[in-house]
Amino acid sequence: MQGSPPRGMRDFYPEQMRIQNWLFSHWRESAHRYGFEEYNSSVVEQEELFVLKSGEEIVSQLFNFEDKGGRRVTLRPEMTPTFARMIAAKGGALAKPLKWFSVAQCFRYERMSRGRKREHYQWNLDVVGVPEVTAEAELLAVALDALEGLGLTAKDVAVRISHRGLMGAVLEALGVPPERWAGVFGVIDKRGKESEGQLWKLMEAQEVPETTIRTLFSMLDEKTIDPFSALLEEKGLSTEPVEDLRTLFGYLEAYGIQEYCEFAPSIVRGLPYYTGIVFECFDRGGKFRAVFGGGRYDNLLERFGAGALPSAGLGFGDVVIQEILQDKGLLPGLPRRVDFFLVPYSRDERGQAFRTVQHLRKKGFCSDLMLNAKKLKGALREGARLGAKRVVLLLPEELEQGLLVLRDLEAGEEERIAEREFLADPGRFL
Amino acid sequence: MQGSPPRGMRDFYPEQMRIQNWLFSHWRESAHRYGFEEYNSSVVEQEELFVLKSGEEIVSQLFNFEDKGGRRVTLRPEMTPTFARMIAAKGGALAKPLKWFSVAQCFRYERMSRGRKREHYQWNLDVVGVPEVTAEAELLAVALDALEGLGLTAKDVAVRISHRGLMGAVLEALGVPPERWAGVFGVIDKRGKESEGQLWKLMEAQEVPETTIRTLFSMLDEKTIDPFSALLEEKGLSTEPVEDLRTLFGYLEAYGIQEYCEFAPSIVRGLPYYTGIVFECFDRGGKFRAVFGGGRYDNLLERFGAGALPSAGLGFGDVVIQEILQDKGLLPGLPRRVDFFLVPYSRDERGQAFRTVQHLRKKGFCSDLMLNAKKLKGALREGARLGAKRVVLLLPEELEQGLLVLRDLEAGEEERIAEREFLADPGRFL
Repeated sequence: MQGSPPRGMRDFYPEQMRIQNWLFSHWRESAHRYGFEEYNSSVVEQEELFVLKSGEEIVSQLFNFEDKGGRRVTLRPEMTPTFARMIAAKGGALAKPLKWFSVAQCFRYERMSRGRKREHYQWNLDVVGVPEVTAEAELLAVALDALEGLGLTAKDVAVRISHRGLMGAVLEALGVPPERWAGVFGVIDKRGKESEGQLWKLMEAQEVPETTIRTLFSMLDEKTIDPFSALLEEKGLSTEPVEDLRTLFGYLEAYGIQEYCEFAPSIVRGLPYYTGIVFECFDRGGKFRAVFGGGRYDNLLERFGAGALPSAGLGFGDVVIQEILQDKGLLPGLPRRVDFFLVPYSRDERGQAFRTVQHLRKKGFCSDLMLNAKKLKGALREGARLGAKRVVLLLPEELEQGLLVLRDLEAGEEERIAEREFLADPGRFL
Repeated sequence: MQGSPPRGMRDFYPEQMRIQNWLFSHWRESAHRYGFEEYNSSVVEQEELFVLKSGEEIVSQLFNFEDKGGRRVTLRPEMTPTFARMIAAKGGALAKPLKWFSVAQCFRYERMSRGRKREHYQWNLDVVGVPEVTAEAELLAVALDALEGLGLTAKDVAVRISHRGLMGAVLEALGVPPERWAGVFGVIDKRGKESEGQLWKLMEAQEVPETTIRTLFSMLDEKTIDPFSALLEEKGLSTEPVEDLRTLFGYLEAYGIQEYCEFAPSIVRGLPYYTGIVFECFDRGGKFRAVFGGGRYDNLLERFGAGALPSAGLGFGDVVIQEILQDKGLLPGLPRRVDFFLVPYSRDERGQAFRTVQHLRKKGFCSDLMLNAKKLKGALREGARLGAKRVVLLLPEELEQGLLVLRDLEAGEEERIAEREFLADPGRFL
């Protein structure tokens, strides 16, 4: 019997759990403050939800299996299809627009590399029923609010923003046939992960002519929207992607988050269901994978039978953010603390210890007591280990006089106090 | 594509999620206040952890499968074996005693009956390294604290307490051969679930003579420990179970929870790893399954290679407690609320709405805004749907004069206020 969890799975011991809860509470608190409602589902999902609706990469990495009833199920790899299923199931009964979020454990069965896990938690946020880019602005604002709450600033991270339709229009303008677009998007999505030489090879495999590759690659490095606007106008193509991007950047300025945000045409996102604005957040140092990513998916809910419901969403995992916070020294220590630790001198003082600890707990103080018969030295060590602010000693002679002995471990000080006074207002002695 | 989750799995829409979070926060808050530390692990576990260590009933109901790497894994049916694995993995590095808890999703693949689900959440609490029944007293105290926090009293629920060794000693005293004990315990555990006639049949199948069955069944109805004490002394058997129970009941009185607790010799618990005190909490009306259950398991950690570590634990599911609270009208309404809902009159007022909503959010107010262009009537309906305490209207003429329009939907009142005053102290207007 191995003591480790299954390959790729994490155990959360109390010190890791404190960090995890610290992160989750930042996620939840920001979401609530921005008017998002929490939802969840079981980690077990119907396999077909992903086989039919997601990209091939995801399907090959599903943590899927057949249950004892012969049904094909999977541990969910992401929340968006589940979210779409839940919205579609309620039909018109859910008033729109709606803003929902979830903190969900997600699973992928992929080869183990670069410290990747087979499970992670993801903060998912979605806005349904909003055709305008106000939805994207809200999503970016709440994600950046959480990042700021965690201690990061615009000096640490940047959100790179583009539009699915923009690169589509560029490919159309450059004469790349539509049946090649998905493949070309796939190559573009690998930028930064593969070498320039490898990208050229992959692009050539898509039968894109050399001059077109060169133009395409140079456009991917553009820092402003203007050259794209000019190209689309010159070719008489719809400038909607350009207008969406310009409107969004205007909104982001009013939201006060423009210093985080930049236009980056190379952002296309891996998942096939995006239709409009797409974005990814990275550390500016370029050392880590994306912190969060998302975009608009106007057709996905309709495919689930929910009617036409323009939507946008965002996923924010728990692993990369912790790597970045660790790297920047921003992970808090979060030591264990209790207010009071009660030490009965022997079994004879236990009854009084039980009554006192319950009194403290019912008054809201985080309190613990010595459960084993132990000598004083061991008891003080245990109190120190729990991070007790005060150790309360119940000693026979003092108890007879109605006294407790209160010990401040940090200061190394000890005082005798009247039990009655202590019980009346324990907070005074902290 | 069906809109429902896989069979036996639950979706949590926002209104259910609010209830779920309300329950979980009571669990977590009580556990923290009683000095328990939170831990967790992935829902995917090694199958052998359960095949080797748990009862046959659990193994036949495992939600188990083979992963793509050919490993036998399972969705955990309960937390205790995972807990034992985690403790054993750290060996002596974890100081004892330790008190840990988890809020963990657990899975069983059983035939669907009586509204049973294939997943539930379980609040698990364990105390490791405490040979004395102070551990059991702590566990019962924290579970009952949470029950009281949820609104239940000793009039609603009772904890039935017994000792594994007690029934063992009774069987020994009655001359039932040891190889029959596990089977007889299994029959005893079915009391209350099966008819008296069916129990007799099952007992006869264990080859227990009729007179012995009669004596056994009459002892199971005893309300006090005395007859057991007398029987064990008469037969010259160890009275340790009796002493443990008497010590525990004394402690429970000092804890102030004796009115919840009663001796009930028929409590034996289904899982095979219990060694001492066992307990189950039921509604006094007898309408529902157990609210929580647990006991002492002094040998389990040793079997995981952790050395001899006397331990006790408790599991408290999320389903039965909600059924009872619902039945007693104690489930809170928990309507959705936001502090402010901002309504820009048209797209022209959006910039100001974005700046204002961000100002409110950064000041800690739960705030939302209208993301679609909508007429005033629709906007007020949306505000009502969000449970907005105040709707803030940004109207062009008023804005020009530096004014906002603040609407109290419940009172049906409206007032014009200086934007500057509002931004300086928004809480004043709630």
